[in-house]
Amino acid sequence: MAERILLLNGPNLNMLGQREPEIYGHETLDDVVTLVRKRATDHGLKVDAVQSNHEGDLIDALHRARGTHLGCVLNPGGLTHTSVALLDAVKAAELPTVEVHISNPHAREEFRRHSYLSPAAKAVIAGAGVPGYGFAVDILATHHNEGH
Amino acid sequence: MAERILLLNGPNLNMLGQREPEIYGHETLDDVVTLVRKRATDHGLKVDAVQSNHEGDLIDALHRARGTHLGCVLNPGGLTHTSVALLDAVKAAELPTVEVHISNPHAREEFRRHSYLSPAAKAVIAGAGVPGYGFAVDILATHHNEGH
Amino acid sequence: MAERILLLNGPNLNMLGQREPEIYGHETLDDVVTLVRKRATDHGLKVDAVQSNHEGDLIDALHRARGTHLGCVLNPGGLTHTSVALLDAVKAAELPTVEVHISNPHAREEFRRHSYLSPAAKAVIAGAGVPGYGFAVDILATHHNEGH
Amino acid sequence: MAERILLLNGPNLNMLGQREPEIYGHETLDDVVTLVRKRATDHGLKVDAVQSNHEGDLIDALHRARGTHLGCVLNPGGLTHTSVALLDAVKAAELPTVEVHISNPHAREEFRRHSYLSPAAKAVIAGAGVPGYGFAVDILATHHNEGH
Amino acid sequence: MAERILLLNGPNLNMLGQREPEIYGHETLDDVVTLVRKRATDHGLKVDAVQSNHEGDLIDALHRARGTHLGCVLNPGGLTHTSVALLDAVKAAELPTVEVHISNPHAREEFRRHSYLSPAAKAVIAGAGVPGYGFAVDILATHHNEGH
Amino acid sequence: MAERILLLNGPNLNMLGQREPEIYGHETLDDVVTLVRKRATDHGLKVDAVQSNHEGDLIDALHRARGTHLGCVLNPGGLTHTSVALLDAVKAAELPTVEVHISNPHAREEFRRHSYLSPAAKAVIAGAGVPGYGFAVDILATHHNEGH
Amino acid sequence: MAERILLLNGPNLNMLGQREPEIYGHETLDDVVTLVRKRATDHGLKVDAVQSNHEGDLIDALHRARGTHLGCVLNPGGLTHTSVALLDAVKAAELPTVEVHISNPHAREEFRRHSYLSPAAKAVIAGAGVPGYGFAVDILATHHNEGH
Amino acid sequence: MAERILLLNGPNLNMLGQREPEIYGHETLDDVVTLVRKRATDHGLKVDAVQSNHEGDLIDALHRARGTHLGCVLNPGGLTHTSVALLDAVKAAELPTVEVHISNPHAREEFRRHSYLSPAAKAVIAGAGVPGYGFAVDILATHHNEGH
Amino acid sequence: MAERILLLNGPNLNMLGQREPEIYGHETLDDVVTLVRKRATDHGLKVDAVQSNHEGDLIDALHRARGTHLGCVLNPGGLTHTSVALLDAVKAAELPTVEVHISNPHAREEFRRHSYLSPAAKAVIAGAGVPGYGFAVDILATHHNEGH
Amino acid sequence: MAERILLLNGPNLNMLGQREPEIYGHETLDDVVTLVRKRATDHGLKVDAVQSNHEGDLIDALHRARGTHLGCVLNPGGLTHTSVALLDAVKAAELPTVEVHISNPHAREEFRRHSYLSPAAKAVIAGAGVPGYGFAVDILATHHNEGH
Amino acid sequence: MAERILLLNGPNLNMLGQREPEIYGHETLDDVVTLVRKRATDHGLKVDAVQSNHEGDLIDALHRARGTHLGCVLNPGGLTHTSVALLDAVKAAELPTVEVHISNPHAREEFRRHSYLSPAAKAVIAGAGVPGYGFAVDILATHHNEGH
Amino acid sequence: MAERILLLNGPNLNMLGQREPEIYGHETLDDVVTLVRKRATDHGLKVDAVQSNHEGDLIDALHRARGTHLGCVLNPGGLTHTSVALLDAVKAAELPTVEVHISNPHAREEFRRHSYLSPAAKAVIAGAGVPGYGFAVDILATHHNEGH
Repeated sequence: MAERILLLNGPNLNMLGQREPEIYGHETLDDVVTLVRKRATDHGLKVDAVQSNHEGDLIDALHRARGTHLGCVLNPGGLTHTSVALLDAVKAAELPTVEVHISNPHAREEFRRHSYLSPAAKAVIAGAGVPGYGFAVDILATHHNEGH
Repeated sequence: MAERILLLNGPNLNMLGQREPEIYGHETLDDVVTLVRKRATDHGLKVDAVQSNHEGDLIDALHRARGTHLGCVLNPGGLTHTSVALLDAVKAAELPTVEVHISNPHAREEFRRHSYLSPAAKAVIAGAGVPGYGFAVDILATHHNEGH
Repeated sequence: MAERILLLNGPNLNMLGQREPEIYGHETLDDVVTLVRKRATDHGLKVDAVQSNHEGDLIDALHRARGTHLGCVLNPGGLTHTSVALLDAVKAAELPTVEVHISNPHAREEFRRHSYLSPAAKAVIAGAGVPGYGFAVDILATHHNEGH
Repeated sequence: MAERILLLNGPNLNMLGQREPEIYGHETLDDVVTLVRKRATDHGLKVDAVQSNHEGDLIDALHRARGTHLGCVLNPGGLTHTSVALLDAVKAAELPTVEVHISNPHAREEFRRHSYLSPAAKAVIAGAGVPGYGFAVDILATHHNEGH
Repeated sequence: MAERILLLNGPNLNMLGQREPEIYGHETLDDVVTLVRKRATDHGLKVDAVQSNHEGDLIDALHRARGTHLGCVLNPGGLTHTSVALLDAVKAAELPTVEVHISNPHAREEFRRHSYLSPAAKAVIAGAGVPGYGFAVDILATHHNEGH
Repeated sequence: MAERILLLNGPNLNMLGQREPEIYGHETLDDVVTLVRKRATDHGLKVDAVQSNHEGDLIDALHRARGTHLGCVLNPGGLTHTSVALLDAVKAAELPTVEVHISNPHAREEFRRHSYLSPAAKAVIAGAGVPGYGFAVDILATHHNEGH
Repeated sequence: MAERILLLNGPNLNMLGQREPEIYGHETLDDVVTLVRKRATDHGLKVDAVQSNHEGDLIDALHRARGTHLGCVLNPGGLTHTSVALLDAVKAAELPTVEVHISNPHAREEFRRHSYLSPAAKAVIAGAGVPGYGFAVDILATHHNEGH
Repeated sequence: MAERILLLNGPNLNMLGQREPEIYGHETLDDVVTLVRKRATDHGLKVDAVQSNHEGDLIDALHRARGTHLGCVLNPGGLTHTSVALLDAVKAAELPTVEVHISNPHAREEFRRHSYLSPAAKAVIAGAGVPGYGFAVDILATHHNEGH
Repeated sequence: MAERILLLNGPNLNMLGQREPEIYGHETLDDVVTLVRKRATDHGLKVDAVQSNHEGDLIDALHRARGTHLGCVLNPGGLTHTSVALLDAVKAAELPTVEVHISNPHAREEFRRHSYLSPAAKAVIAGAGVPGYGFAVDILATHHNEGH
Repeated sequence: MAERILLLNGPNLNMLGQREPEIYGHETLDDVVTLVRKRATDHGLKVDAVQSNHEGDLIDALHRARGTHLGCVLNPGGLTHTSVALLDAVKAAELPTVEVHISNPHAREEFRRHSYLSPAAKAVIAGAGVPGYGFAVDILATHHNEGH
Repeated sequence: MAERILLLNGPNLNMLGQREPEIYGHETLDDVVTLVRKRATDHGLKVDAVQSNHEGDLIDALHRARGTHLGCVLNPGGLTHTSVALLDAVKAAELPTVEVHISNPHAREEFRRHSYLSPAAKAVIAGAGVPGYGFAVDILATHHNEGH
Repeated sequence: MAERILLLNGPNLNMLGQREPEIYGHETLDDVVTLVRKRATDHGLKVDAVQSNHEGDLIDALHRARGTHLGCVLNPGGLTHTSVALLDAVKAAELPTVEVHISNPHAREEFRRHSYLSPAAKAVIAGAGVPGYGFAVDILATHHNEGH
């Protein structure tokens, strides 16, 4: 029944392409959304894309997706390392969720090596650049097709 | 003079009854508000109920309650473990505050055993389910009647 | 069948009312027992009250209560932070147990923020003063009536 | 080209003058804005002042200031100790930023001694009271005049 | 001269067979004593068996065994992880001591992985069930026969 | 010039399909190799596949691949968490390396959350099952085609 | 009014002179009591001496001494490092207390360097041997004479 | 069907009898094998004995024993404290495993007190000398006879 | 009465301008002294300037300033992170003290993020370069004029 | 032969009586020296008294006392918690040394609970005020008379 | 009798000269062996050189050298930080061992600052480049000539 | 131009030969200076030797050597583990510095395993006895001759 994917990008991802391009590359958030939509279409799926710098908006979006979407592609930005509330929202949404990071957080500051969200994620993809979002869509589609 | 209580529920508590019912039970946020109003009425008190997934909204609500309410019943959800800003708001509001958790956080992940808010709380009630909110109202009413 | 509650108070609670009244208040252990009996009577329950400064006595009391009582109201005093043996006794007794602290340990020394017992407790009430014992009785009675 | 400074105040700073005056003093946020505008005028600069209790609002303001302002005076309030997202926004904005604390966080709770933002700040001023904001303006103006 | 072994069981071991049988099995403390006596008889040794939930009783028993017994089989229960006084008593008794745990504490909570007593023990046996007590007797008998 | 990829699987991955299938699934190491070869062929690349339970063999294979291969897909198994020597070999080989884990280590024991290799990896993929190996090939091929 | 001193010795101090004499020396507990009585007599004071291996007995003794004794000389033995209940009893007794250790715990295992009791003690004497008890009496007598 | 036991000795155990005899005693690895075979024969079991200084060989041996042996007696030597790969192999082999240490690691350096393997072991025997291997055989035989 | 300020510079600050100019800039200690004198003159104050590489000299200078100076501008250099004795001297001097660092220690090694002195300082200024000394004089003058 | 005692006082002890008298009391360093000389005379001993705020001076004094004095009474002030060099000097001097603290460091900041010197001290006296120096002399005299 | 030295190089040292030359320099392992042989010849000693990427091979080599060689020059590579088994082999070999690192590990990642081997080494030389191996030979030769 | 080496010895090294000879050997500081001069002469270099127990003197000596000496041989004694000021002086002097320890600090107390200076040192030599100073001269001479 649910044939939609939620694409959720957290704080500062609206700056993609401008912000620290030596770390995050030159592609923009629009490029990300385009790629995800295209990949989803390949799997016969639709995408709802939300970006917000507000933790609360991300939580709201997850709540709305509960029961209506088949999974979530989530790049939590800096909230990765600090937000238990977002973790709780992922659990509350009861959606298989793939955590995506454009750069490799393990190659940066020590505090970026811990994620509150990873234990609740189905999969984690880090350092694959923007294409990592595409892999996340594949994972959700496969998981869905296997009848989970 | 102040005869009102602030009932403040943080992130994900709008999902009560749906989210992980084996942990949080089947009662909803409406049930919580109803119980708190009823218990407050027994003490001749009124209730203002706020729920938000936004830390900033919770802080705003605490600021507004300063000087106009006699106390706060606060379930900070996942912000319990991560928000110094909410702690500061509790102190800024200068309201006796009872911290409530529906489930017992000590029986869950290690990181749920630390609360930034508890040192500033008048009392902490955890694991008593929805009735714990009622106990919190009793505590605030008693505290108020003792002339604090 | 079991219609009794065990009220168990640990080390130094016999000094209640005398000891550091600015922290623990002026009510005595007798006041606690009276309140608990009264509250239990409201629920049609009886109370066995034990206080000891000996860890072993508390363990013995828990063992005796196994299968004969419907729950335990436990204020472990300083053993909260240091006794694995008491934790094991709570588990061995197989009684729903509510951990009560008169003052709020989170507002005191750092080492008082850790409780060995809380993960095994049904609920934890801290900082509610002597009335906290009454809430604990309510929790056990409700739990019992719900057929657990 | 950019001749404006962003004055950014985080959670609870709207309560300045009311909240814990023994720690934060009696001056209000209006006094802060007035002082900063005056000091900026001395340097031929204009000021945009934003205060919010919402982390997301602070991040949005930093993004907007990118390329249009010459620097930021930032008092992150309680987010100092908990927000990686705000740190990322400071980096994304690519503005020299001076972190200001009215009181001295080192003289308070242990957790206030760690700041996520300080490593990305040009300078940190703590405990200088409201005048500390003025010093921050001086630092940004000097930095700008030196042709950075 | 000393031809006796002290069998010392700490808190909650009187509940053996009743308490958490999925962890500790269905054999009782009587079964333990019977097995130890039988194994000791095989080596021509006698057994004094003490169980107590009181740390002080265990210490007293160790003191009494000094110079009169050839070794001690000790299951300290929850005191394993918390009692320096019991460690000191083991040293004061100057008896070779084998620490026995029926279940494997390493497969349980993190805090059960540390034993104050192990550094002073001749040997440690964990997870071997009730037969582990028999191995302990063998160890003490062998040690004694080798002329230590 | 280099048109080959090294597929390197560490300890216990020869047991794939047999070992803890509820964690690692039912596909075998042969399935992994087949998938990687197929995906590489799509990119016009060849694959050398090595699996060993010996840290030294993995290091040797990395050394041999230096200058002859365009990248490495590496599932280090349990060595992920313990081997500095393997990290040094990855650096010595000077190959872009994608670290792959079939299951999500963040959802398992705490010690599985730290990887010595991740800081040196180009990308990390965890919890995507066997298809994660395919994503790794894509990443290396794209990286190569972009002229790195 | 109160002209008595409580001399309180904890677990294993009854073994003094026998137990590890290379650490604790050859004098016995009787020698300690004799020395303390003699020193107290010099100050016109009487002594009540209690030794127990039971934490609860030590707590009881402290409670009884409240309001009837002018101070306590306390060697808590191994409970030094583990007993919050004894710390609470010292506070509850409201007696100036001097903590005495015959040997120097800082020259032994790391865990012996932390004392729960020291922060509540008036003074701490370690490594002075049995004469350290005499110094403790002097401290209490002087403190008393100065009108505290 | 499986009537064989795997006896697996890790690094440096080939040096038994020569290496630090004040810690490990004078018996050799041959003595160990002889004892284990004899004890196994008593239970009607056969033994395959492997010793290697190579982690990979130990892992290989465990893999081969899967489904063909009824259990493993494992002394991992120094790998006890460092090898997650060996832990994974023990799990992959799905054999009940008894971890044996000839000396008591708790009486040595602090880092020897942590074992990666113990949580996956059926039982742990430490400090019982070479006879500890015999106890391990008994445990496996009993476990097998009880129909596990 | 006291109309003098103590300017105290610790180890290596005599090398200012020569030492690591990319961190500390090109101004010299003479420039610092000149700036501080000028700023002090603006406030009608005099300055005593001391620089030493000897902890003891700094302590002596603080002692001499007690009761004769109205405050201290202190750059403790590397002693910031290691000297309790200097902290004690600041407290013994009973002078309001402003801690100044030319560079931002939070952007350097982890150990530079902890200061023993900050909890005793009135204010802390870091990363403002040599002008930070001027701000410190302003703070002391204002503090003095407000009648503290 | 050696009939002299070294009395060594570290940083800030020259301020005794002036500095934080609510912690350190009103007696001065002269009072300390007078008391120590008097007590030493009672034992037929002479005293050399050194106070310095320079770690190096204290080390020099200890070196000079080697072989010429029978012991040292040492109050290291703030160096207690930070100086390995002073610890090494105490060892190099080969003098029995009694560490004295006028106040009880355990009742103050956490970092004052660790002493580098205590493991090398014969005895430690804390919180006994100035008379604690007298006890230290007694300890050294007794130690000397016992023929050590 | 023993006139041979074992030169033992661990994982990745076969890549010397190729691998990260900005850290390890341009000399090769052959250069190292040549230098060590030459230096040994100066002392009248012979050299057996072993390099392996297998921990087990290094352990085997140490065992073989026991009783036949007069010492070992050991560069353990990445095993320095992770191998207890190699530490045990060094102890089992009972050879004076000099630990050599070509670069200075203290100037690199934090985890490279800890060595399991150093406590068992006679000497440690780090950062002296390839000549450091020569110093190691000198140390062993001198040690041997002094009759150890 | 600079043809001199600074030989810098820190606290307690004046006691060499007398102090703990079982750790530091019987050679004196004069022997060290003689050896270093001789070795330097072999390289055509001169030596300035400074020893002080004062941290400040060592810092002063490093400052004076800046630009006039080609390198420094530094044994910082106990300051190794505690002095950031000395680290800063080494950096300020901009001299290649070899850190020398006569004994092996890794074989002693845990706190001796950390050196503030090592990350800034060119090389570290520990446990090689007095000859280690000679190796340090060789390293500096080679470094100089290679044209650094």
